[in-house]
Amino acid sequence: MLIIGERINASRESIAKAISERNAAFIRNEAEIQAGAGAGYIDVNAGTFVGEEAEHLQWVIETVQEAIDLPLCIDSPDPAVIKAMMPLVKKIPMINSITLETSRLESILPIVAEHQAKVIGLCQSGDAIADTAEAKVKMAGQLVEKVEGSGILLDRLYIDPLVYPLATNDQSALATLNAIEKIMKEFPGVHTTCGLTNVSYGLPNRKLVNRTFLVSAIGRGLDSVIMDPTDKQLFGALKAALTISGKDEFCMQYISGFREGKIE
Amino acid sequence: MLIIGERINASRESIAKAISERNAAFIRNEAEIQAGAGAGYIDVNAGTFVGEEAEHLQWVIETVQEAIDLPLCIDSPDPAVIKAMMPLVKKIPMINSITLETSRLESILPIVAEHQAKVIGLCQSGDAIADTAEAKVKMAGQLVEKVEGSGILLDRLYIDPLVYPLATNDQSALATLNAIEKIMKEFPGVHTTCGLTNVSYGLPNRKLVNRTFLVSAIGRGLDSVIMDPTDKQLFGALKAALTISGKDEFCMQYISGFREGKIE
Repeated sequence: MLIIGERINASRESIAKAISERNAAFIRNEAEIQAGAGAGYIDVNAGTFVGEEAEHLQWVIETVQEAIDLPLCIDSPDPAVIKAMMPLVKKIPMINSITLETSRLESILPIVAEHQAKVIGLCQSGDAIADTAEAKVKMAGQLVEKVEGSGILLDRLYIDPLVYPLATNDQSALATLNAIEKIMKEFPGVHTTCGLTNVSYGLPNRKLVNRTFLVSAIGRGLDSVIMDPTDKQLFGALKAALTISGKDEFCMQYISGFREGKIE
Repeated sequence: MLIIGERINASRESIAKAISERNAAFIRNEAEIQAGAGAGYIDVNAGTFVGEEAEHLQWVIETVQEAIDLPLCIDSPDPAVIKAMMPLVKKIPMINSITLETSRLESILPIVAEHQAKVIGLCQSGDAIADTAEAKVKMAGQLVEKVEGSGILLDRLYIDPLVYPLATNDQSALATLNAIEKIMKEFPGVHTTCGLTNVSYGLPNRKLVNRTFLVSAIGRGLDSVIMDPTDKQLFGALKAALTISGKDEFCMQYISGFREGKIE
């Protein structure tokens, strides 16, 4: 299970402030606690600094790489910024993200191919949103076709079927769960990933909904997740779900997570 | 989702003490808090009082029925005790339980048929334990055959595929989850139920494992559970799992559970 640590995102106020102030100690700590908690990639996002995103993201990348050895997940709405960051990263990164929008595909897939990077593909096409399992799987198939057509191995593609708020569509989580199961069966070798926070928008006790969704998604075959690994309840749910799914030999991951104080 | 409230069981020390002392207020409270928390049936068990079980269970049943209006789940290792309790119950009960053991089947199924009761059927046959999904589904099929052969509607059968401790077999939960899914598909109309505590035996933070297992099982189609509905974290996981599975119109069950303080 690959965890992409989501904390270093300028949409969070504390991160935006630390970036503005060039508070390297703060950013380094954010990277270190996620690495220590089990992240495999560290997402880096400075997308709220419109017009100055590249210089800010460059500083974030350099700061994070001083602190930890993990590969990064370069998260930007701007393909030009992604391209500009590639020479700076020390390890082969993941790129967050492509959609089926042609301009985005055409600008990002060559970068992914050239650097043998990993890439997150969202089941979304410009304004078109896929809110049924069928629509999500269809878009996943189109992503697979585009990625393979660019000479990129399927093992480098992480499909995010996206999940929309239950509060506005009470079938939205089920659609995503069904899509995860179908995508993992229909496209052998591909990965699935998902952000967790959308699903609970507008509901009380959001974290309970988020971690219950994660447990359900792991049961359907999800093999990567974009989350905060320092959330001990969420991390505990993840570890317990892997154990229950028969993916934890002798329950050792669960037991050691508990012993190391990472699980609540 | 039918919740069978498990608290009134003489294997719990406080319950055994209350039964011995004929502490009616204690037992009434145990019934009331479970009814208030969402139980559909109240399990009653005095099985540890060997030789005096019938008189103790009779008192428990009368005491619980003074307190609440819910039907009971008569839980006894002794078919004669189950038979003796039938005239005492005010509502059609559930009987806990049959296995594939012939003597138990032959003594209990006629009682179930005569009273149009519900019955829990364990995937177990004397000493034979089913620890793979295939073995569980096979035994489920045999239970279905026996129950239908006694003229009992499948809708009255709650199959418990049983779950064994992950600490001794790291595939045990997955076997049960796969069995639940297959049983619900292969025998339309039948129900599945499960106790949750076995799965976590020997592991740290058992309640986390139990509720993660429940969420996973609901994702596979489990439609009944034997649990303590007053455990707010467990109840929260149950409600969130139903919402995520698309079984909670407009998320109203989840939202009202939260408003009523039943969810943590």
